[in-house]
Amino acid sequence: MNYRFFPNFTKEELAKIQLEGLKWTVNHAYQGSAQYQKKLKKSGIHPNDIKSLEDLQYLPFTTVEDLREGYPLPLLSVPEEEVVRIHASSGTTGKRKVLAYTQKDIDTWKIMLARCFELAGLSPLDRIQIAVGYGLWTAGAGFQLGCEYFGAMAVPIGPGNLDMQLQLLVDFQTTCLCSTASMALLLAEQVKKHQLQSKIALKKAIFGAEPHTPKMRKYIEETLNLEDTFDIPGMTEVYGPGTGLECSAHQGIHYWADLFILEILDPNTLKPVQPGEVGEMVITTLCKEAVPLIRYRTRDLTRFIPGECSCGLNLPRHDHILGRSDDMFIFRGVNIYPGQIATILEQFPELSSEYQIYLNRKQGLDFMTIKVEAQEGTTIPDNLATAVEKNIKTKILVSSKVEIVPPLSLPRSFGKTKRLIDERDN
Amino acid sequence: MNYRFFPNFTKEELAKIQLEGLKWTVNHAYQGSAQYQKKLKKSGIHPNDIKSLEDLQYLPFTTVEDLREGYPLPLLSVPEEEVVRIHASSGTTGKRKVLAYTQKDIDTWKIMLARCFELAGLSPLDRIQIAVGYGLWTAGAGFQLGCEYFGAMAVPIGPGNLDMQLQLLVDFQTTCLCSTASMALLLAEQVKKHQLQSKIALKKAIFGAEPHTPKMRKYIEETLNLEDTFDIPGMTEVYGPGTGLECSAHQGIHYWADLFILEILDPNTLKPVQPGEVGEMVITTLCKEAVPLIRYRTRDLTRFIPGECSCGLNLPRHDHILGRSDDMFIFRGVNIYPGQIATILEQFPELSSEYQIYLNRKQGLDFMTIKVEAQEGTTIPDNLATAVEKNIKTKILVSSKVEIVPPLSLPRSFGKTKRLIDERDN
Repeated sequence: MNYRFFPNFTKEELAKIQLEGLKWTVNHAYQGSAQYQKKLKKSGIHPNDIKSLEDLQYLPFTTVEDLREGYPLPLLSVPEEEVVRIHASSGTTGKRKVLAYTQKDIDTWKIMLARCFELAGLSPLDRIQIAVGYGLWTAGAGFQLGCEYFGAMAVPIGPGNLDMQLQLLVDFQTTCLCSTASMALLLAEQVKKHQLQSKIALKKAIFGAEPHTPKMRKYIEETLNLEDTFDIPGMTEVYGPGTGLECSAHQGIHYWADLFILEILDPNTLKPVQPGEVGEMVITTLCKEAVPLIRYRTRDLTRFIPGECSCGLNLPRHDHILGRSDDMFIFRGVNIYPGQIATILEQFPELSSEYQIYLNRKQGLDFMTIKVEAQEGTTIPDNLATAVEKNIKTKILVSSKVEIVPPLSLPRSFGKTKRLIDERDN
Repeated sequence: MNYRFFPNFTKEELAKIQLEGLKWTVNHAYQGSAQYQKKLKKSGIHPNDIKSLEDLQYLPFTTVEDLREGYPLPLLSVPEEEVVRIHASSGTTGKRKVLAYTQKDIDTWKIMLARCFELAGLSPLDRIQIAVGYGLWTAGAGFQLGCEYFGAMAVPIGPGNLDMQLQLLVDFQTTCLCSTASMALLLAEQVKKHQLQSKIALKKAIFGAEPHTPKMRKYIEETLNLEDTFDIPGMTEVYGPGTGLECSAHQGIHYWADLFILEILDPNTLKPVQPGEVGEMVITTLCKEAVPLIRYRTRDLTRFIPGECSCGLNLPRHDHILGRSDDMFIFRGVNIYPGQIATILEQFPELSSEYQIYLNRKQGLDFMTIKVEAQEGTTIPDNLATAVEKNIKTKILVSSKVEIVPPLSLPRSFGKTKRLIDERDN
């Protein structure tokens, strides 16, 4: 296949690009940012010490605390007049994380997104409805930028506003939706309710910002009659959405290894996990000017996917983001990620993909209630809740109470759906 | 003065650019759009007939109805695959007006905005807080694009969210605000209330999207301690914000006569008004690809400003937008624009710039009540309302009831403030 936006290098060529990028990045950060220089000096590394990719392991980690410390322009490594834009993440705790961009950073980002649209099999005749936040958030700006550079037609709406979303889906015969899976679910439910299936032309959807289950995706694909859907990873710290994309083979996410180096580390030992094992994504950028990242601890959990992809694309792969180390909760001494619960619920065809986990404390003891919606049009067997509880007990080794609630009864969201409600400190 | 983004032509050079652009536009619209071809054929004009700028007067007008007729992509004059973006205006009546853009259109737009920022005396070290809508609306996208191309730092927030606006004004030491004057007024009131004047670094503000009075501007300038403020015209049909900008001499708005031809016509006879007289702005674009405009009736009211500008800039000028022909209301047989009322209120130092006009009908007769806020910290003389009523009677020849209400008692808006509440049909 002939791609317009994809590089095609041998492993040796890629390694050479990565080494050059790593040397440039460490030197650039050291020269440009007092905060980075201090950090590197403290760990005893000088940019000239970087001789091979193996030397990556000696570099200090960068964390979210480093981004908060230098607020409002942390780790800035270029003179301020070269910054043309900032974006920020929502910052649920303390001040928000603000990231800066040079014009070159924006140009790199637009290539990343153009690759995504190409990998999703779109063409300049596609019409892409962008149903994610603009302004301070990276999502809208990123999709818009990439869409225009790719040459498709951007239909920029932003999140929410279901009536307008539906109207433009119909009026513009939009072919591709970019949104959270939660938002797409909401839209699918509305399309079904208003019987608009035959009036829309959606073929593809690209989902970002939150982990979603295969069941959720299947419901959206069937209800909206989609040809294919794609998972897009990304984070404000590394430009925004589009650090890679799932290809149509659906065997993991190809990521742009010419633009950043990905390590998967054990979050406790900070050493590489065994091949194929789950760990924390740690990212080192290779050409980011305004705010380069050196071994940035993303807190996102994933694993490398070994071997060649059947799609033929010569770029390494990681798995879907399986959760965030932040999302982990400790329940009666057991470490649990919401995604583990989701994976179990997934196996019961009578249940929908919508669930919420409630944690409570009574007389010093923790209790977990899992509310999950019944699949529409399904009869729920009497013993189903008990069967799910048993399954959770067997696989995660904890007791829980499962409540099967009516379809559409849990709250919907335009953005990331809140899966965990922890009321133990109340 | 040396400008980076300004052309500097003689009148002859400008006339040549305009003639070439006019010929190109008419031919491009004729060849590319069936809707335009039909329109031009009906009026008996062929593109080859255009020999001089004088021939403009024989071309047919384009109206808002033409934009609605071809919904969703009216007057499209390029193949669809060349469209990379759409924007839309809010469309209060019927379907919204949707406009399409090619990459070249976006590149033209970014030059327009860069000229605006240059004319406002900004530099790449300025930090521009963009407090207007993103997504479907042109405002956010336009300011963002121009800001980055100009090289200043965009702080993209969007409208509303006063707490975040205030936080970023302080944290980022933003130097320039882009917003509606209504939004700036709201922000100024909040800055005053929270005593943040000494903690912010705002120097300039650029106001668009609605007419505003000198009093409103003076209040904002004084409260936020601004060096200067600028009025920016624009409309979705002609790219978006930034069709020109007021210069620091504040003697009208310089507009980009190399990118479009402006006519000022009597809205009834559709003939040019006398030099300096108020009429409807009619615009013909000179290089717009996706949706060129031929003699587009903007419904905006303004006048040409004759003579040379003391700022030395060699580009023609029009006055502030004085209102919209749509805003005109008929009261007891008299045609009135809200701006006429505003101009009268403006002359009373005891009154603030905030007002609303209420129209009612009782027993078949129309009544007008004008609510206007008292200036903060001012004692209102007993006979002030009567004095204002008399002034209105003398200048506009209608009877009204003036109510002076307490400071901050009328509703505030993030966007265009609603000045007229017409309840006569209830």
